[in-house]
Amino acid sequence: MAEQMWGGRFAKSTDEMINEFQASINFDKRMYHEDIAGSIAHAKMLNKVGILNDEDTNAIITGLKNILIKIEQGNFDFSVDLEDIHMNIEKRLTEAIGDAGGRLHTARSRNDQVALDTHMYVRRETIEVAKLIKELQLAFADTAKKYKDVIMPGYTHLQRAQPILFSHHMMAYFSMLSRDFSRFKGVYERCDIMPLGAGALAGTTFPIDRQFVAEQLNFDAIYSNSLDAVSDRDYIMEFLSAASILMIHLSRISEEIIFWCSREFSFVELDDAHCTGSSMMPQKKNPDVSELVRGKTGRVIGHLMAMLTTVKGLPLAYNKDLQEDKEGLFDAIDTIKFSLAVYAQLIRGMKVKADIMLKAVREDFSNATDLADYLVKKGMPFRKAHSVSGHAVHYCIEHKKWLEDLTMDEFKQMSDLFEDDIYEAIKPETCVKNRNSYGGTSYQQVDMQLELADKILNDEQAQLDIYKDKQIKL
Amino acid sequence: MAEQMWGGRFAKSTDEMINEFQASINFDKRMYHEDIAGSIAHAKMLNKVGILNDEDTNAIITGLKNILIKIEQGNFDFSVDLEDIHMNIEKRLTEAIGDAGGRLHTARSRNDQVALDTHMYVRRETIEVAKLIKELQLAFADTAKKYKDVIMPGYTHLQRAQPILFSHHMMAYFSMLSRDFSRFKGVYERCDIMPLGAGALAGTTFPIDRQFVAEQLNFDAIYSNSLDAVSDRDYIMEFLSAASILMIHLSRISEEIIFWCSREFSFVELDDAHCTGSSMMPQKKNPDVSELVRGKTGRVIGHLMAMLTTVKGLPLAYNKDLQEDKEGLFDAIDTIKFSLAVYAQLIRGMKVKADIMLKAVREDFSNATDLADYLVKKGMPFRKAHSVSGHAVHYCIEHKKWLEDLTMDEFKQMSDLFEDDIYEAIKPETCVKNRNSYGGTSYQQVDMQLELADKILNDEQAQLDIYKDKQIKL
Amino acid sequence: MAEQMWGGRFAKSTDEMINEFQASINFDKRMYHEDIAGSIAHAKMLNKVGILNDEDTNAIITGLKNILIKIEQGNFDFSVDLEDIHMNIEKRLTEAIGDAGGRLHTARSRNDQVALDTHMYVRRETIEVAKLIKELQLAFADTAKKYKDVIMPGYTHLQRAQPILFSHHMMAYFSMLSRDFSRFKGVYERCDIMPLGAGALAGTTFPIDRQFVAEQLNFDAIYSNSLDAVSDRDYIMEFLSAASILMIHLSRISEEIIFWCSREFSFVELDDAHCTGSSMMPQKKNPDVSELVRGKTGRVIGHLMAMLTTVKGLPLAYNKDLQEDKEGLFDAIDTIKFSLAVYAQLIRGMKVKADIMLKAVREDFSNATDLADYLVKKGMPFRKAHSVSGHAVHYCIEHKKWLEDLTMDEFKQMSDLFEDDIYEAIKPETCVKNRNSYGGTSYQQVDMQLELADKILNDEQAQLDIYKDKQIKL
Amino acid sequence: MAEQMWGGRFAKSTDEMINEFQASINFDKRMYHEDIAGSIAHAKMLNKVGILNDEDTNAIITGLKNILIKIEQGNFDFSVDLEDIHMNIEKRLTEAIGDAGGRLHTARSRNDQVALDTHMYVRRETIEVAKLIKELQLAFADTAKKYKDVIMPGYTHLQRAQPILFSHHMMAYFSMLSRDFSRFKGVYERCDIMPLGAGALAGTTFPIDRQFVAEQLNFDAIYSNSLDAVSDRDYIMEFLSAASILMIHLSRISEEIIFWCSREFSFVELDDAHCTGSSMMPQKKNPDVSELVRGKTGRVIGHLMAMLTTVKGLPLAYNKDLQEDKEGLFDAIDTIKFSLAVYAQLIRGMKVKADIMLKAVREDFSNATDLADYLVKKGMPFRKAHSVSGHAVHYCIEHKKWLEDLTMDEFKQMSDLFEDDIYEAIKPETCVKNRNSYGGTSYQQVDMQLELADKILNDEQAQLDIYKDKQIKL
Repeated sequence: MAEQMWGGRFAKSTDEMINEFQASINFDKRMYHEDIAGSIAHAKMLNKVGILNDEDTNAIITGLKNILIKIEQGNFDFSVDLEDIHMNIEKRLTEAIGDAGGRLHTARSRNDQVALDTHMYVRRETIEVAKLIKELQLAFADTAKKYKDVIMPGYTHLQRAQPILFSHHMMAYFSMLSRDFSRFKGVYERCDIMPLGAGALAGTTFPIDRQFVAEQLNFDAIYSNSLDAVSDRDYIMEFLSAASILMIHLSRISEEIIFWCSREFSFVELDDAHCTGSSMMPQKKNPDVSELVRGKTGRVIGHLMAMLTTVKGLPLAYNKDLQEDKEGLFDAIDTIKFSLAVYAQLIRGMKVKADIMLKAVREDFSNATDLADYLVKKGMPFRKAHSVSGHAVHYCIEHKKWLEDLTMDEFKQMSDLFEDDIYEAIKPETCVKNRNSYGGTSYQQVDMQLELADKILNDEQAQLDIYKDKQIKL
Repeated sequence: MAEQMWGGRFAKSTDEMINEFQASINFDKRMYHEDIAGSIAHAKMLNKVGILNDEDTNAIITGLKNILIKIEQGNFDFSVDLEDIHMNIEKRLTEAIGDAGGRLHTARSRNDQVALDTHMYVRRETIEVAKLIKELQLAFADTAKKYKDVIMPGYTHLQRAQPILFSHHMMAYFSMLSRDFSRFKGVYERCDIMPLGAGALAGTTFPIDRQFVAEQLNFDAIYSNSLDAVSDRDYIMEFLSAASILMIHLSRISEEIIFWCSREFSFVELDDAHCTGSSMMPQKKNPDVSELVRGKTGRVIGHLMAMLTTVKGLPLAYNKDLQEDKEGLFDAIDTIKFSLAVYAQLIRGMKVKADIMLKAVREDFSNATDLADYLVKKGMPFRKAHSVSGHAVHYCIEHKKWLEDLTMDEFKQMSDLFEDDIYEAIKPETCVKNRNSYGGTSYQQVDMQLELADKILNDEQAQLDIYKDKQIKL
Repeated sequence: MAEQMWGGRFAKSTDEMINEFQASINFDKRMYHEDIAGSIAHAKMLNKVGILNDEDTNAIITGLKNILIKIEQGNFDFSVDLEDIHMNIEKRLTEAIGDAGGRLHTARSRNDQVALDTHMYVRRETIEVAKLIKELQLAFADTAKKYKDVIMPGYTHLQRAQPILFSHHMMAYFSMLSRDFSRFKGVYERCDIMPLGAGALAGTTFPIDRQFVAEQLNFDAIYSNSLDAVSDRDYIMEFLSAASILMIHLSRISEEIIFWCSREFSFVELDDAHCTGSSMMPQKKNPDVSELVRGKTGRVIGHLMAMLTTVKGLPLAYNKDLQEDKEGLFDAIDTIKFSLAVYAQLIRGMKVKADIMLKAVREDFSNATDLADYLVKKGMPFRKAHSVSGHAVHYCIEHKKWLEDLTMDEFKQMSDLFEDDIYEAIKPETCVKNRNSYGGTSYQQVDMQLELADKILNDEQAQLDIYKDKQIKL
Repeated sequence: MAEQMWGGRFAKSTDEMINEFQASINFDKRMYHEDIAGSIAHAKMLNKVGILNDEDTNAIITGLKNILIKIEQGNFDFSVDLEDIHMNIEKRLTEAIGDAGGRLHTARSRNDQVALDTHMYVRRETIEVAKLIKELQLAFADTAKKYKDVIMPGYTHLQRAQPILFSHHMMAYFSMLSRDFSRFKGVYERCDIMPLGAGALAGTTFPIDRQFVAEQLNFDAIYSNSLDAVSDRDYIMEFLSAASILMIHLSRISEEIIFWCSREFSFVELDDAHCTGSSMMPQKKNPDVSELVRGKTGRVIGHLMAMLTTVKGLPLAYNKDLQEDKEGLFDAIDTIKFSLAVYAQLIRGMKVKADIMLKAVREDFSNATDLADYLVKKGMPFRKAHSVSGHAVHYCIEHKKWLEDLTMDEFKQMSDLFEDDIYEAIKPETCVKNRNSYGGTSYQQVDMQLELADKILNDEQAQLDIYKDKQIKL
């Protein structure tokens, strides 16, 4: 049977096999909106400079809009024989309106048309990604507010190090995502350059008006070199880089959530929607979504790698290798949009077990630094204070106590600088409160971060509003 | 509209979104044959050890075979709600034969079932790949025979270095592919281990007979550790590594063919089926297939990278991240099978322009080494001979001549060791003939390589015959 | 002997082995300047907020400056036992000035100190890279000016497509590098955030003034979350992404130069300094530098991949894995700086063979498009004109002529629209001149690009001047 | 100062800059042993076929052995001006023994010489790696024996799933490493091919005896195609692939050990030598080595990626890009050898906390499956049994009990099939014992695995003994 499948497949003539591999319609059809918008703008320009008459222009625009409707209604049959989205639409247009359809391709080539579509598509999806980043930031900030005073152990090397606020931890991810937003803004800017008018590679002999097309399509800039216009894939590589870094961030919170959901940590409980259970063990909830997102990080990095390797060493201008630019990109877009959207819900749905977190802080020595600091403030030299604190921990381990369980007598034996206020000083709440340097984990500093977050979210929204006005409507 | 699409998409409930991302049926359905074969073997084993009675066993086997027929006839509706190929088949089976279907899952879990299917699938596809490698090797050997005496420039640094036989060049790729065959043989061996019976992770309490199942499914070995059985993805990483190295080889011949098709080289002409033309410039033939294969090299490397990154740092045993193991693998399989199949045709269809190649050898100084060697054999010390040869080339460049254009007088002025036989000695044919060390480019050595090739191909075929006998028929 | 080496190596105690692998001094010593600058700023701040007295502060600053001098004079022995640059300097300082040296570490940890140093180092090197990008852009622009009117074939699929100006080709690389400059500007901005003051992970209980330190060290921003400050490696991943894309560009021009240097193209001749020759074949010049840079592209991409994989899935805050962030980064910095610097020289030293390029244009059919355009302008419908042009090329191939060799009679037989001005219309110079759309290859458009280039270079210089003012001098 | 360093650096002439980047002596000097062994074999062969006389041959061999001694004594000054290890040795040889030294290079080129050295080096290091893999396997097996009956929770999705033996977990890694050993055996085989005699690319005109050289150097095979011999880098890519998969395995155990060392798990305690502590918190031990190895996984994957990308699309035969093959390879070798060596010690030094592991099993519901199985064996249908078990768990959670805490009355209320033997049936020990399918976690199966391990280790040692006999001694 394996034999047969195989045979079946390669019973195809070479041409069929090759056509199938060359055809891009199965993945590039998602750029239909961009293709139509680009063609309408091109038609208007051709009309403006006198290449297309009014009648043909109107027929083209109407025809294209009809095709748009058909596609969006699901009434458009895409054909593999017509290879790509451009030919599918052009063919249908010509069938519908006759010769005028053929004139649409004047003064452009497939090389600059596909470049145009992809730029527009990446630009649009970059905005969608930016929106979703902001939504996830909001989820982190809201969750930080919701559990603002919850204390948890802060970790280095996955070892408990110092008590921190859970809200502080949440806001660390808020900060990372702010940089992601900023990086995608950079992607947008360097993608917002119009290639159309570059022709196959050298420009065109027709008196076209690229500035007019750019205005129609809300581009801020135009490629000033036609060879560059048709062979540039920087914006895709940069998009994939930004996407990879974003996924790295999500993989980090995923790893943490997977820990936190383990029986050993039991710090949080996820909403059922983001887990799978087991009929046998009702208490078991697998953090599938977090595992999936962590796993998909490799996928996005792989797409980046693929793209970099593909473009390496290609001579100017267009080479067929460049057709490999879309599938990985599209898959990366789907992956990060899903990951961001689902994570915003997951974070909001997560129930924090404050008591278990606090217990984890209390039943440990993460306040040893604060004990030393107490002595320093009472006048003991730093080195000596550290030594006393270390001794105290040793003593506790031997006697199976925590620092706060020591009696005043025991404290006094270690140093007579200890007084009753030591008990207050080494409470988790105090440890947290005292780390009040800018950006530290104190309540006050987390409040500052939350205020700052509002400002950042507002700025991002302002940016999104600008982008929104630049969206192409048909 | 973009707005709308987006909205449309995420109007879905979270569950729907997540289900869609978690479901693997869209890509794992291609393992239907393995899934059914595995289930039949499992059922027979359950019967053998007394867990399933004869009636149920027969019902299961008949039911599964009916499903197989339906799938192969295209009459099976795969359902995303049933997530994966295993559930799709099991559900349908139970609908068809009732409770007996439910008993099939006794003593196995989805973890070891998916591991089984994937092992069998990779094993099968590895054989297909091996076959296609052999076919391509044959194409190289046949092409070498066809153009055995054609002389071309050998290059280092893309600079003409020494004359070689075109057939010698072809056989270099034959050699590379021999190693690829060997590597995939290694992949097969380390994939040929049966995981079924590992249960979810720890084995099962049922008295199963794994040896019996392994025999049914032609496995040579059984995982001796259940944790390893469900979490091992080595065979996928190793498959992707071997696939990447194979694609590297194809990218190298692709690069060369792209050169050779350029107007500047004009060494070969491809068959029309492997090119695209231009209505404007009939002489223009773009070597699309070679460009595409070169481009797809990045794609396969990207899948390897994705897989490595995904598995890195995963604790035992199963984690959901591992579900990311299939899409990249399947795409890599399709890509290398296409690339190998189309390349065998491309190489066979390629027309070699012997005259242009020879001209490229003649109109250059790639025989300068042979001039020096001539003098050495006449008794001149090596260093001095080299110096005379260098001087001769300089003289030629100044006087716009090639070495073979020098008169005997001119030769004599450089060294009186030169005699009439020098003209014979520096002919391209002689240069080639004299590089007769084992594996060198001489006619005799290429004949040796071709004989060796027959032996290698026979050995490979013997291996393929062994594999063929191990294929599972239902 | 192999045995012995091995044995020798592992005769070391575990501790020694591990120490050696953990120690970073061999690579992080290059950050000595940043480490000292950071410590001086920290000392001043501690003094300002009253933690350090004036005497200690002055001793520390003087001591650190002395160490700086010693290092720069090559008189500083770095010790592996002291693990890293921070400990090497602190130990030496304490030896020199006594207890005051120990006080320097108050209110900071190694986690935020190494983060500070690396941020400052990346910031500095980003500027160096930006400078070198600009220098290379200048080399491309100057070379474009020098050979402004040289005509060459423009290629797609490595097939000659249309005549273009060599200067247009050079300016394509200028454009790519403009985006690289812009990308590194983005790297700088997202790297220009000060981590010091984050302590080990949670901030510090000391009343430090992070704003003051930031001003001392010319940082525009401060990390507002301490966990993020010590665990963020975005700026390194982003640097490596930008570096990878930059290398992709250099790999593309490298590939082209390697072609152009081949005997088959013979379009350019490199300066001897950028090649290696052969004593035997004086005409042979291997384009080693271009090959090396193309090869090193893989190296930089590998470093990016390594970094992404390393950070994937790490929980907050610091983990030892993050120590792997520096070697790849440093090597990438060295590699791109070398590549940029040597390429600026290579491009300037490259001799263009205008006559051979023009011959390559003339002896081909890349003016077939212009023949069709001629007919269109005379009133023939587009499709028909294309057909006539295709026919003309066919006719020429059969009769071994080029289009410009056709007699007027021959032209007239194809279409009576042809008149004497056809000969002018299909001259390479005319073909080039007529592609006068914005960004096209016409003389006028290349002039435009060169003017634009001046503006871009000025803007970049303005940016570099701003950066220069932000450099830390000690 | 930054300014100055930079200036200083590039004040160098281009030639110096390029020389420095081209020179490989700083990294290829580690192949000195291979280079000398290769040269001695080559000299003997030249003597055998009559090209070198006895006197010269003896002088060369003695001279080379003297150089070997000097290098191993540390008395050899490597010079960057002499570029690479080959030239450094040849130059010194000629200084020592005069003209005879110059004759050594007859009938070979640097291209095949470097290929020879690298093959021999990879072959040798592959053996070292294989030895270390075996050592680590032994450590896992010994540790499994030492803690054979310790019960721990088995995890899926990092959720406790079923009780397993700790020894079973250890043996999972043993199994993975067996495949690594096998993979490196494959690397050895495909690397064990002698390139010398390929000349620059086309073979040589001298009557050399490659078979004789291969015997001298213990090669099993000879490259049968000279172009392939000088341009093949498969063995490096394959080595790096095998190294990456090996590191993936080590990253997985690293992740687990990092968990297990966390306060939350507290399953193991590492030896002090493999941790760093904290003077403040004596109980804190950071699992640095595990973090470092997990981090270095990215590094090795990066080297693989770099190599693949570098070779992609290179035409035959030698290109300078290929010089990039060594640094990443050497670093990967060092990294995996360190990681393996240190891990063998770490695993042996690890103290397992059996009581805590058992507690983690007891205080959970991982015996719920066994409760259901109990009922099935008493005759209850499977589905119903599962439902009863699920109900029991629910009941326990509500009443804050574990299954083994239920009274017989409570059991009876759920099903009257329960009898006194239920308490025995759901003990962790029983759960483990009953998973007795081949490769399961039962005591008996782990014993089987340990016996199998002995056999595997013996087979590996037999292989290593064969390799040992093939090592070149001078």
